[in-house]
Amino acid sequence: MRMAELSTRSGTPVATIKYYQRETLLAGGERSGPNQALYAESHLERIRLIRGLTEVGGLSVAAVRRVLEAIDSERSLPETFEIAQHSVSATIDESTVSAEALARVDALTAGWHVSAANPGRLAAARVVDTFAEVGQIDVRGWFDRYAAAALLAAEADIDELDARVDRAAKGETVVVGTVLGDKLFSGLRRAAQEHIAALRYGQPPEAAPDHTP
Amino acid sequence: MRMAELSTRSGTPVATIKYYQRETLLAGGERSGPNQALYAESHLERIRLIRGLTEVGGLSVAAVRRVLEAIDSERSLPETFEIAQHSVSATIDESTVSAEALARVDALTAGWHVSAANPGRLAAARVVDTFAEVGQIDVRGWFDRYAAAALLAAEADIDELDARVDRAAKGETVVVGTVLGDKLFSGLRRAAQEHIAALRYGQPPEAAPDHTP
Repeated sequence: MRMAELSTRSGTPVATIKYYQRETLLAGGERSGPNQALYAESHLERIRLIRGLTEVGGLSVAAVRRVLEAIDSERSLPETFEIAQHSVSATIDESTVSAEALARVDALTAGWHVSAANPGRLAAARVVDTFAEVGQIDVRGWFDRYAAAALLAAEADIDELDARVDRAAKGETVVVGTVLGDKLFSGLRRAAQEHIAALRYGQPPEAAPDHTP
Repeated sequence: MRMAELSTRSGTPVATIKYYQRETLLAGGERSGPNQALYAESHLERIRLIRGLTEVGGLSVAAVRRVLEAIDSERSLPETFEIAQHSVSATIDESTVSAEALARVDALTAGWHVSAANPGRLAAARVVDTFAEVGQIDVRGWFDRYAAAALLAAEADIDELDARVDRAAKGETVVVGTVLGDKLFSGLRRAAQEHIAALRYGQPPEAAPDHTP
């Protein structure tokens, strides 16, 4: 297809598509004339992926470039995971996290194979430090139950990965699942909080009508 | 304590503390002279809370103002939950989400008390749309397992809330738990992904040494 059709079908302005090409997120088309190129379905899919990662996933262009390189590479899945995790995580300097918080996270994940540099380990420790700074301590195993929930979600992630047939599809699932999975969980947790709070405390008086049957 | 001590103990520049006061996030001190005021422990705690919400939680000043008002109010807990949820969630116009995605989320949360306007419901639907746009469908109940994990986390949230004695502490737990809980889960999920991937596919060759015993 030509650029105009690629733009229409992807719902993306031509200028944006050209920006993706300049930023090397998207390959050029096949030259079909002095000033014309043809694009394949794979270009369309790649544009949708870039937009999902930036607009819903909140990734920067630099982060998208790193994860796309990981998808397109022949790296092993654990390596692709590592790259995806680092690309979609804030870089946290271990020296800014307290030893107590790191020990707490290591206790929460005791028995797991987690490398010291796992970005989630440092991010979780930073959150534990923040909970402590604002005077919130988990008196009823709050954080342990989060670790159990995280294990459930991660098992679902990897099962989904196993269901993909080829390497490229697996790579894409790693990246998309890592980026969008956080957002999906966050949304569902808010819905679940309303549910559990309604069960225990009753519904708020001005709540919109329940949509569930 | 005086402003200088408040600044030292909170690790926050005086200019930042004055900015919080101008933005009405922080109450003024008790006047002790023509150009002097005294601050209490509650000021120190409030500054730590504001910094946790902005720096780790990623909230805007406007969002922090809304959640602090909810904490300080005499609203019911479900109402405080609603305000915290809306303050820490992107505003998503229902018209930008597909009916299919909303139906999918409603099916994932079937039997839950979730109001139509729950921000998590709309956010989850937007993620489901994005998954579909990039060609990722949950072939093995991926999303259902996220819903189950979200329910676990939400139950832990509310149990923690029940453990707090007074209304102000409960309000703070609602807000802190909603904001920081997402980040804690996200970090633990990355650690859990590395663990499950290592079990199934082996560890990446250049992985840092395992820190767990």
